[in-house]
Amino acid sequence: MGIYATGRPRQPIAIEELERQAREVLPREAYDYLAGGAGSEDTMWANRAAFQRWRLVPRFLRNVAQRDLSVEVLGQRLSTPFLLAPIGVQSILHKEAELAVARAAASLGVGMVLSTLSSFPLEQVAEAMGNVPHWFQLYWPGHPELAASFLHRAERAGFGAIVVTLDTYFLSWRERDLQNAYLPFLQAQGLANYFTDPVFRAALAAPPEKDPVAAVTLFSRVYSNPGLTWADLAFLRQHTRLPILLKGILDPDDARRAVDAGVAGIIVSNHGGRQLDGAIAALDALPAVVEAVAGQTTVLFDSGIRRAADLLKAVALGARAVLLGRPYCYGLAVNGEAGVREFLQNFLADLDLTLGLAGRASFAEVNRDCLVPGP
Amino acid sequence: MGIYATGRPRQPIAIEELERQAREVLPREAYDYLAGGAGSEDTMWANRAAFQRWRLVPRFLRNVAQRDLSVEVLGQRLSTPFLLAPIGVQSILHKEAELAVARAAASLGVGMVLSTLSSFPLEQVAEAMGNVPHWFQLYWPGHPELAASFLHRAERAGFGAIVVTLDTYFLSWRERDLQNAYLPFLQAQGLANYFTDPVFRAALAAPPEKDPVAAVTLFSRVYSNPGLTWADLAFLRQHTRLPILLKGILDPDDARRAVDAGVAGIIVSNHGGRQLDGAIAALDALPAVVEAVAGQTTVLFDSGIRRAADLLKAVALGARAVLLGRPYCYGLAVNGEAGVREFLQNFLADLDLTLGLAGRASFAEVNRDCLVPGP
Amino acid sequence: MGIYATGRPRQPIAIEELERQAREVLPREAYDYLAGGAGSEDTMWANRAAFQRWRLVPRFLRNVAQRDLSVEVLGQRLSTPFLLAPIGVQSILHKEAELAVARAAASLGVGMVLSTLSSFPLEQVAEAMGNVPHWFQLYWPGHPELAASFLHRAERAGFGAIVVTLDTYFLSWRERDLQNAYLPFLQAQGLANYFTDPVFRAALAAPPEKDPVAAVTLFSRVYSNPGLTWADLAFLRQHTRLPILLKGILDPDDARRAVDAGVAGIIVSNHGGRQLDGAIAALDALPAVVEAVAGQTTVLFDSGIRRAADLLKAVALGARAVLLGRPYCYGLAVNGEAGVREFLQNFLADLDLTLGLAGRASFAEVNRDCLVPGP
Amino acid sequence: MGIYATGRPRQPIAIEELERQAREVLPREAYDYLAGGAGSEDTMWANRAAFQRWRLVPRFLRNVAQRDLSVEVLGQRLSTPFLLAPIGVQSILHKEAELAVARAAASLGVGMVLSTLSSFPLEQVAEAMGNVPHWFQLYWPGHPELAASFLHRAERAGFGAIVVTLDTYFLSWRERDLQNAYLPFLQAQGLANYFTDPVFRAALAAPPEKDPVAAVTLFSRVYSNPGLTWADLAFLRQHTRLPILLKGILDPDDARRAVDAGVAGIIVSNHGGRQLDGAIAALDALPAVVEAVAGQTTVLFDSGIRRAADLLKAVALGARAVLLGRPYCYGLAVNGEAGVREFLQNFLADLDLTLGLAGRASFAEVNRDCLVPGP
Repeated sequence: MGIYATGRPRQPIAIEELERQAREVLPREAYDYLAGGAGSEDTMWANRAAFQRWRLVPRFLRNVAQRDLSVEVLGQRLSTPFLLAPIGVQSILHKEAELAVARAAASLGVGMVLSTLSSFPLEQVAEAMGNVPHWFQLYWPGHPELAASFLHRAERAGFGAIVVTLDTYFLSWRERDLQNAYLPFLQAQGLANYFTDPVFRAALAAPPEKDPVAAVTLFSRVYSNPGLTWADLAFLRQHTRLPILLKGILDPDDARRAVDAGVAGIIVSNHGGRQLDGAIAALDALPAVVEAVAGQTTVLFDSGIRRAADLLKAVALGARAVLLGRPYCYGLAVNGEAGVREFLQNFLADLDLTLGLAGRASFAEVNRDCLVPGP
Repeated sequence: MGIYATGRPRQPIAIEELERQAREVLPREAYDYLAGGAGSEDTMWANRAAFQRWRLVPRFLRNVAQRDLSVEVLGQRLSTPFLLAPIGVQSILHKEAELAVARAAASLGVGMVLSTLSSFPLEQVAEAMGNVPHWFQLYWPGHPELAASFLHRAERAGFGAIVVTLDTYFLSWRERDLQNAYLPFLQAQGLANYFTDPVFRAALAAPPEKDPVAAVTLFSRVYSNPGLTWADLAFLRQHTRLPILLKGILDPDDARRAVDAGVAGIIVSNHGGRQLDGAIAALDALPAVVEAVAGQTTVLFDSGIRRAADLLKAVALGARAVLLGRPYCYGLAVNGEAGVREFLQNFLADLDLTLGLAGRASFAEVNRDCLVPGP
Repeated sequence: MGIYATGRPRQPIAIEELERQAREVLPREAYDYLAGGAGSEDTMWANRAAFQRWRLVPRFLRNVAQRDLSVEVLGQRLSTPFLLAPIGVQSILHKEAELAVARAAASLGVGMVLSTLSSFPLEQVAEAMGNVPHWFQLYWPGHPELAASFLHRAERAGFGAIVVTLDTYFLSWRERDLQNAYLPFLQAQGLANYFTDPVFRAALAAPPEKDPVAAVTLFSRVYSNPGLTWADLAFLRQHTRLPILLKGILDPDDARRAVDAGVAGIIVSNHGGRQLDGAIAALDALPAVVEAVAGQTTVLFDSGIRRAADLLKAVALGARAVLLGRPYCYGLAVNGEAGVREFLQNFLADLDLTLGLAGRASFAEVNRDCLVPGP
Repeated sequence: MGIYATGRPRQPIAIEELERQAREVLPREAYDYLAGGAGSEDTMWANRAAFQRWRLVPRFLRNVAQRDLSVEVLGQRLSTPFLLAPIGVQSILHKEAELAVARAAASLGVGMVLSTLSSFPLEQVAEAMGNVPHWFQLYWPGHPELAASFLHRAERAGFGAIVVTLDTYFLSWRERDLQNAYLPFLQAQGLANYFTDPVFRAALAAPPEKDPVAAVTLFSRVYSNPGLTWADLAFLRQHTRLPILLKGILDPDDARRAVDAGVAGIIVSNHGGRQLDGAIAALDALPAVVEAVAGQTTVLFDSGIRRAADLLKAVALGARAVLLGRPYCYGLAVNGEAGVREFLQNFLADLDLTLGLAGRASFAEVNRDCLVPGP
């Protein structure tokens, strides 16, 4: 009790080392796509810096012999206070891609949000997740029937919620990818959900297997619609009974509009610094959003979490749970399913220890009393 | 829609890379002249740091399918919210110098402010600009007839405004140039407007082509007059009907004096950190100046803008439009007209995406609601 | 008078150099164990940064010809305003370990706090300390009889106080050690107090000398009890008449609970950044804790002190005395007893000069008037 | 007018480069003695950082055709707003030492403060200064008759003021010097004023030329007296009619005591970060001191000035003039008298341009309106 035992780790423990190892094993353009951000990438770094400005203040002699890592989100108990964030086109990182991630996550009871831009069809990934919570992330297509089809397929496949990403109606100015002239979707990667979709296929003269160029062209036309407005949310609600979360909210006014729109939850996020260059650090946006919604909807968070202490800070500032992105992908790149699992095992061990050392036995006790603003 | 396509870029996308490439192709002293600043260069770096202290807060679901990059300045609609800043003696960067820049700018509808210290006569550059807005920057000569001559020539050549630079009545203590013992004007570079001027030529015993040393000497005597005062502005107004803007304002009291003097506009600028060492970052000076003029004159801005997000921040803080300086010169150094054009195309693409991803469809919507102070 | 004389030093004066030399002489995993911190190690660095944000303001012409470095703590006068912090398993640094440290400290009249995880039995270290103040640090065992035995042994051996470490009921997520797969206790190092304890030995089937694996296993089971609460402090008080200090307090509410519990003192500390990743810098926590206890208990401090100026700042902010940790261990690693002594001599000389140059003749004059917050 | 002409400089323009060159030409221990600071040297760096937190705000169109660099100090007009700071034992930098410095300074009309620890007798340096202002810095000896003798000699030699250094009654913990085991005074360097003093010589059994060890020993005994108090200032006033300035004041209360003591001026200084490790940056201490004395005594400043902009900031914050230290010594090390002169010429040129570009024609116009706090 109280002392850990461990064998020699198969992969780096420190996330910075894991990222370095991923950079070594990946082709340059795949690494850049994963690790890079928009424009000057200062938002990506601001995300990290924001965590250092909040400091945890532990309490002692409170009996933390038993720690409970579970949280309740949307009326459901998650065994961990985080889910894996939706990250598209994981085939550029490892051939087993989202399936490897799903298997690793499911084996540890960790929930997952699957990207629309998955390398495998959503039905197949859902099967790999089994009973462990899995949600579907929607890049809201400009083609309404396709949007409806995605929703129906996700619901039928057993996904528990729809996460609508608001901040990516077009890809940002990503200088690394532009320099590399790299956009994997143009090589038909990450389009499994489109290529297997009956609505999408019906709009093609020839199946994608025969004419991939035409299929990619159609994809690029239907991928999104920057003309959508709050009124259009009604369309989504008409086509699914699943709870809907809006991902990318940073402004308190948008958070209030989301409450007015009756969504089940919002995710405070700047897409890991990959979309609006110069955007506010996601953690810096969190307190005002939490205050704005005043408990009327569930607030989740992502962008910048690398270790357990980051997660505690986000929860202490009002997030019910968080999403973890790039870190698990470094594990995937380095060692596939086993690499993801090992990263997750490490993160869970760190989380259990950190929660306990903060003097809290469960995340219900993690609130503003746990931290102070840094100097 | 929503996905960009791009060929492999001919030159670096990231401005830092473009600058690095310019450093490689340029002679050391030319690069230092362009990239350097006054004294310790801390003002130059303060200019950049100031942008990171303001953070954009995007809005969503607002219909940004159509974006409009145009702005109205001095009663005229510019197709872009920026003009190219006046930078002298571009012949040290590329033999086509200001002509290459003008052609690139004009081909994209981007306005330009031509420096008094141009390598080509203002008439020739004006011709290259065609109908695209072009203004003339005046280093206010100590010799009144020469000043009047410059104004008349600019007006006759079709320049749309006069930008009077206030902050360069003498060159600052630029340590790189002093160490390099480099001042291109002394080699008769950048003096085309003087050498072609009838007033200037009349003051010489022999034409500059015959006796360049005497011509350079005369230039150094008439270049400026640090004894000028606000009262002297009347002289300029008497000699041109063009709108006059004062460039270099940083103090709110000077801004109010400019309003009292009835100028058409002011440009908040510290000359890219090239003049007063230790000066306030231009962006830090902007809000107080905007407040001081209270809408009674047009406020433009330059100093430190490198990417679209910077431009949005300056406009959000009250600038009607901005000027872009060193970045286009790096393009010029690397690849002449094509290099400038490619830089501008990139900047415009970044601008269009960034405006849209901020959830704004035009710069009329870009105001203080778009940002929050950083932590 | 007023000028120091010194021979060429045998070991580096600057602590950073001394640490560098320790890194050279130590096995990688021993150095990492000593120098590393929890998780991202940002708490460890925050500890250091916190000192730079307070600035000393010296006074002059106050007669500091005689300086007095002594302080009164728990009714006893210490000849120096610091004690050596409890650091376990020093055998990984030097074979003479805690004995070398005790001899060096005692020779200079410097007090010491011995770790439960000592490489030599507490009785032997106490003997080496002689009449110089020495306290016993308790990792409060989950096995009550063992806890009682430690207390009785410490009291019998002449230790003057019990320092109960609150923040280490389990070891934190230390990435360096995990990467090195290094935990010296598992190789039976640092367990002398356990292996010589009658209660501990009685719980074993075979003595530790015969079956070290079983002994280590027992140790890992009895090392701590994360289920302890404030109510359990009564047990400690029942088993010793020595004053009890609680080490690791960072939250003002915990400080008030400590006052209510009637302990003799508290030590504001985050265990040198080795336990809760993301924790508040210890110095940043000090003022609020000092205010909370309002003089009702003695406040000591550790975490991050490297030079005399740091110590002055901690005392000025309300600490009665401080504990010094890693620095003396670098001396131990480099040169054993002599290395510790030389470090201490340097620190004492620095302290005497710094106190005098601050214009104070004793630590009774070191208070909030001595410093201002940095900008 | 308005354009500078320059030949290729003989030595680096940028002070950082000049320092680098000095490091190359000097023996390691001499460079370390000059460039180093106390303890962690963070005060030395804090001195520099403090300047960046104040930003100059230039004004325009104010007629700065004629600039006046002179200032009035103690009823005397100095042709420059700075004097050379007292720096001892310059023989370790160049064999002509203080004489070279005096000649360079005098040739440009720049005032100088000579250190007690001069390598040449004060009479000889005074002669080199001629009519250019020169003051004598006093390390107040513990031996009263020696103190009186120094005062009388300085007065007789034509020094215009006495600068009493308060902060060096003993040398601080300077880790570089300790590591190098270097203290030049112990090799009888920098002791010319002592060895030529009749009182000092009378106290020796043999003249210093015969028994330098005994002379150095006496020096180390009489160098200072840390027991002095404010009351002892009367002694100094009794032995000289020269104005007395106190150097090293950082606390407003000490400043008020200085006013009460009726001294002619104070110098806000932390001895360039060479004495109290962790001390407040001198510039950060300046505003409160200026406010405390409320014009009742003259306030000068040193510690950290490297370029003209720094000087403007110090004057804007209330210093009547400043002292420049290490920079001229780098010039001395690199090229003797010519090296000092070239540094000073550069500094003066920078100063003239910077004053003008700030829109001020004289230092009488340099006040709080010239700057704003940085962000």
